[in-house]
Amino acid sequence: MLNQKRIEGLMNYMDEIGLSQMVIRNPLLVKYFVGINARGGDRATILYVSRKNGVKLILNELTNYPKELGLEQFFHGDQDNVAEQIAKHTIHDEPLGFDGEYPAKWLLPLREFNAASDYVLGDRALNLQRANKDEGELDLLRKASKMNDSVMAKVRTLFRDGVSEIEVARQISGLFKEAGADNGGWAIVAFGANAANVHHIPGDARLQPGDAILVDMGAPMGGYHSDMTRTFFWKSVTDRQRQVYELVKNANISAEKAIRPGMKCCEIDAVARDLITAGGFGPNFTHRLGHYIGVDLHDPGDIAWYNPDPAIVNMTFSVEPGIYLPGEFGVRIEDLVIVTENGCEIMNSDNKELEILGL
Amino acid sequence: MLNQKRIEGLMNYMDEIGLSQMVIRNPLLVKYFVGINARGGDRATILYVSRKNGVKLILNELTNYPKELGLEQFFHGDQDNVAEQIAKHTIHDEPLGFDGEYPAKWLLPLREFNAASDYVLGDRALNLQRANKDEGELDLLRKASKMNDSVMAKVRTLFRDGVSEIEVARQISGLFKEAGADNGGWAIVAFGANAANVHHIPGDARLQPGDAILVDMGAPMGGYHSDMTRTFFWKSVTDRQRQVYELVKNANISAEKAIRPGMKCCEIDAVARDLITAGGFGPNFTHRLGHYIGVDLHDPGDIAWYNPDPAIVNMTFSVEPGIYLPGEFGVRIEDLVIVTENGCEIMNSDNKELEILGL
Repeated sequence: MLNQKRIEGLMNYMDEIGLSQMVIRNPLLVKYFVGINARGGDRATILYVSRKNGVKLILNELTNYPKELGLEQFFHGDQDNVAEQIAKHTIHDEPLGFDGEYPAKWLLPLREFNAASDYVLGDRALNLQRANKDEGELDLLRKASKMNDSVMAKVRTLFRDGVSEIEVARQISGLFKEAGADNGGWAIVAFGANAANVHHIPGDARLQPGDAILVDMGAPMGGYHSDMTRTFFWKSVTDRQRQVYELVKNANISAEKAIRPGMKCCEIDAVARDLITAGGFGPNFTHRLGHYIGVDLHDPGDIAWYNPDPAIVNMTFSVEPGIYLPGEFGVRIEDLVIVTENGCEIMNSDNKELEILGL
Repeated sequence: MLNQKRIEGLMNYMDEIGLSQMVIRNPLLVKYFVGINARGGDRATILYVSRKNGVKLILNELTNYPKELGLEQFFHGDQDNVAEQIAKHTIHDEPLGFDGEYPAKWLLPLREFNAASDYVLGDRALNLQRANKDEGELDLLRKASKMNDSVMAKVRTLFRDGVSEIEVARQISGLFKEAGADNGGWAIVAFGANAANVHHIPGDARLQPGDAILVDMGAPMGGYHSDMTRTFFWKSVTDRQRQVYELVKNANISAEKAIRPGMKCCEIDAVARDLITAGGFGPNFTHRLGHYIGVDLHDPGDIAWYNPDPAIVNMTFSVEPGIYLPGEFGVRIEDLVIVTENGCEIMNSDNKELEILGL
């Protein structure tokens, strides 16, 4: 059923950016607004939103949703031109907005049918609405992160001398399914120097004493994502490893403590980045501090030096500082947080103190 | 590594439609041309193709591909505007084409950077190239369909009185994994009147004597898809069920026998449709006869009354006539075929004679 509160929120943000109508095809967002498992592919399910002109679903007759969805539905067949079908419902002399993932195949041909006076991104309104999580979403996100915590507890028991990254990654996938996740999720498992590669793909590397072990993993529950990173050490830790670990941990905890509604995302990033820079590892923190999260693992919006948007209450994002030393090792520590009236709620409760496993 | 033959083929089709440059973001197609497991999401991996201006990859520095790909690579960071990065490489005074799935977020902002003189779909060139399967692709498609045959043989043993559709569908998923598919694939399992619903989602319906059993299923192998439908009857069959079954079987076999290079897709559709219409069930064959198949389950292109394109050698598509009788039952019989010099090769060898199971 159409979620009236979310649609009203979107229309308010559309008003703010002066957009009177938009179309949404990203199946995750059609689900977010209408509650149906919308499909991608070659058969259209497109949500049209306009305060002036109504909220409508323009869809292929061979899709298969409940009949009552709380909005008008307009069906077409495989033989029909989807752009022409959309143009029947738009206000032709006003601009039309699009979700960011909206495909060229149903965008560019709209011009032939004079669907609108201009074609513009409606991302800004959508992203603002998506960032503003409601209680139902927050509950699902909390459940997913709690599940992720429970899996990380078990992950600590999977390591032994000679185990390969890919073996551990496969076991993690099984653990997610056992824990009731929507699917087997994903996991970066990196040993030793591989942990210095931000997006390492788990491979045949085998665990050796002295290795750093970086585990970045998550899986959705009820359609909402989890995402957490922990870094362990196997059997021993050097002074340099400990120094880097404590610096990253401090950056993670300090950034989380600093979060307030109204604080700019670039300022949150700076809290962690300044600490790591002061510690002498600035150039080795090679990525943004975090990303928004929700129905997408990466909802649009970053906690980064290039994002001046303020944090708002009920926004959810990752806090994941890292230091990467090519040829040596890497450390990343990541939690998910919810911005609250006075600070933030950290959704992960897994231990962040340095752990030497295998002792 | 860049597949020179496929790129050359694409550039030939671009020449035919008068397009000098295009960008491709659909990860399946970037993989098809460059051989990398390109990612979707918020970090760009975009293939730029131009006979005049070169073949280039424009990508986020945090993506993770082999270094040597046989083409120039241009990296940017999370803080960069992707459209601006693309505009650095385009011919500004000529039109720029796009793949059909190319997202609005990196299309509409190109105008700010004067990336091209116009923005147009490049789908036609891409789709023609994709339809022209090479030997490597045909081998993978044959393997996937052979695997699908082997799973369908086992599916026949899964039925018993009272088993539910969803139980059978879950077992099929396990069978695909055992058979070495890339993943658990998908399956429509429909009993009795549910078989009259073209896109039925398997549910709690339980098998009863006299039911039609429709199983439409597939899974990819090596990235190429399989897709086959068989309809069985449980313990008994009525004269009406038999009549409808034989008509659908005849339509399937006749269409497959008629296929020749140069025959229009709409003419292939008509062979099956005319037979079903002559049999009195025209209005109950509610969909296209088939769809192209390859790296997508539904590659762009249909075997349907609205497609005048001719079949070409090495084109691959489904032949899937069906008759749907609401409240009663439905029958669909589907194979995948490859167009050959003299006709077609049917990739599925599973039995199509009427089968009564459970006897």
